[in-house]
Amino acid sequence: MMRRVLIVGTGLIGGSVGLALRAAGFEGEIAGTGPTEETLTIARNRGAIDSWHTTSAADSTAAGCDAIVLAGPVLSILDWMQRLAPVLGEHQLVTDVGSTKVQIAALAAKLYNQPGRARFLPGHPMAGKEAGGAALAEAGLFRNAMWLFTPSAAAQPSALEAEWRAWVAKFGARTMDLDAARHDELCAWVSHLPQMLSTALAALLEESFGGDAKSRAEIAAIGGRALGEMTRLGASPYSMWRDIALSNTEPIAQTLNALEQRLAHVRENLRTPQLKEEFRLANQFRKRRDG
Amino acid sequence: MMRRVLIVGTGLIGGSVGLALRAAGFEGEIAGTGPTEETLTIARNRGAIDSWHTTSAADSTAAGCDAIVLAGPVLSILDWMQRLAPVLGEHQLVTDVGSTKVQIAALAAKLYNQPGRARFLPGHPMAGKEAGGAALAEAGLFRNAMWLFTPSAAAQPSALEAEWRAWVAKFGARTMDLDAARHDELCAWVSHLPQMLSTALAALLEESFGGDAKSRAEIAAIGGRALGEMTRLGASPYSMWRDIALSNTEPIAQTLNALEQRLAHVRENLRTPQLKEEFRLANQFRKRRDG
Repeated sequence: MMRRVLIVGTGLIGGSVGLALRAAGFEGEIAGTGPTEETLTIARNRGAIDSWHTTSAADSTAAGCDAIVLAGPVLSILDWMQRLAPVLGEHQLVTDVGSTKVQIAALAAKLYNQPGRARFLPGHPMAGKEAGGAALAEAGLFRNAMWLFTPSAAAQPSALEAEWRAWVAKFGARTMDLDAARHDELCAWVSHLPQMLSTALAALLEESFGGDAKSRAEIAAIGGRALGEMTRLGASPYSMWRDIALSNTEPIAQTLNALEQRLAHVRENLRTPQLKEEFRLANQFRKRRDG
Repeated sequence: MMRRVLIVGTGLIGGSVGLALRAAGFEGEIAGTGPTEETLTIARNRGAIDSWHTTSAADSTAAGCDAIVLAGPVLSILDWMQRLAPVLGEHQLVTDVGSTKVQIAALAAKLYNQPGRARFLPGHPMAGKEAGGAALAEAGLFRNAMWLFTPSAAAQPSALEAEWRAWVAKFGARTMDLDAARHDELCAWVSHLPQMLSTALAALLEESFGGDAKSRAEIAAIGGRALGEMTRLGASPYSMWRDIALSNTEPIAQTLNALEQRLAHVRENLRTPQLKEEFRLANQFRKRRDG
C-alpha cells in the first residue's frame, strides 16, 4: 500500500499531482524534492507537498518512499531514473509524467522492472497550461484529461502500480495504455506538430511584420479569431518544449515534412478541383471529431 | 439620402446587413434579390428584407434603389458589377462585402466611379461563421468586427458613401481604409493562410488516420485543445473559399510558400539553438498581440 510518496519536481504538473492526491483522499505523506527551493516552498505553502528535501538528500528520501513520481522535463526525468535506480528496491514503484515515452521506456527496461529493481510505470498526463510553475498547480488539472501509460508488455503489474492507476482515475483522468513508440508518434501528430506549426507561423508573422509599426498596427487591427487560434500556442515557452524536440526528433520531423508537402499540394492546387477534395477531407475529419 | 436599399445575395452576410440596418434604425425599404427563392424567403421571414425580387427583375429593382449592397462570393459580385453598371446612374451607390478586393477595385475603376456612372465603394466586413445561410444571419454579426474599405484614391467620396459608412459604424463595426492590393496581401496572412493551413492539417490527419477505426479512436482520445484549435477552420466549406482562392491566388501562394520554408527550418533545427530563437520570435508576436 502506498503510504509515502516522493514528487521529484514540484512545478505545474508535479505540484498538481500532490494537490490531486490530497483532493482524492490520500492520507499518507507527500514529500517533494527539486532543484529550486523557491518552487518547493511554493508547493509546500500551497499544500501540494508536506515536506521538502534538497536534491542532495533525495536518495535517502526516495529510499523511504513507496512511490516516486518523476515530474519535470524529459531529460531531467532520464537523469533521475539513472540516479535513483541503484538506491531503490523491487517493493517500490517509480512513475513519471514525461511528455515523450520511447527513451523513458527504454531506460525503464534497462534499469527497472527486473528482479531486485524497482518497478517503473511510464505515464503521461495530457494536461498543462501555457505557463508552468507551482503557483499555477491545481487539484483539478487532470479532470477529464487523458493520462496515457506505456507499460512494458514484459513487466508484470504490481499492486502498487494498480494503486497508482486507481489514484489517477480518482484525479478524474481518463486513461489509455499504449506502446511507447506509438505514443510518441501519435503525440507528434496531435500535440508536437500543432505546437511547432503555431510557433513557426507566429515567428514568421513576427519576422514579416514585427519590424514596422504601421504593419504591426494593420495586423493587430485585421487579425481576428482565426489568426488568434492558429498562433495561440506560439506563446508557449521554449523551456517547455526543448526536451520534447530533443527526445522525439524523428517523429516530429516526419509530421513536419508531411505537412510541408501537404501545404505545397494546396499551394499548387489553389485553382484546381484538388482544393475541393482537400476541403472535403478536412470537413470529414472535423465531422468525426465534432459529431 | 438613402431611402431604398437593395441587398443582392441574402445569405449570412447579406441577411445580417439587412438585420443590422433595421436594428440601427434604418426606416427605408430594404429589397432583396438572389438566385434562390428559399434563401430570400428565409431572409424576408426573419425581417432582413421587406420584399424579394427574382434575379430577372433585379435590373429594374436596382435602378429604383439609392444603394445596392452586393453580397455573396467574389466571382458573383464581379458578375453583378458587370450586369448592374449600365442600368445605374451617378446618384447611386454600390458597395460590396467581398473577401478579396483587387479584382473588385479594378472593375470598379473601369465600370463605376466615372462621370455618369454609379459610385462604387469596395468593402469587406471581417465577420462570419463556420457555416453560411440566411437562417444564421444576425443584427449583431458586425459588432466589434473590422469592416475594411478599399476606396480608389481617385474617386471623390459622395454623400451616399458617407452615409453608408455611418450605417456601418452604427452596426458596431470598426473601420479602416486600405489600398486594395495591401488588403489582399494582409488578408492572405491573417485569414487565408490560417484557413488553408487548418484545412491542410485536417486533411492530412484524415488521410493518415481516418481509414482505420483503431487509429481514429486513438486520435480522438488523445487529441486535445491544441489539435482542436488548429483544425477548427477545417470545418469551413469549400463553397465559402473557392472564390477567395481564385481571386487571391498569388498572395495566398506566397504565404503558403513562406510557411513551408519556415516549417522546414524548424524541422532542420529541432536539435539546435535555432529552435530557441524561433520560440523567442513567436513569444514576441504573441506578447504584442496579448498585451
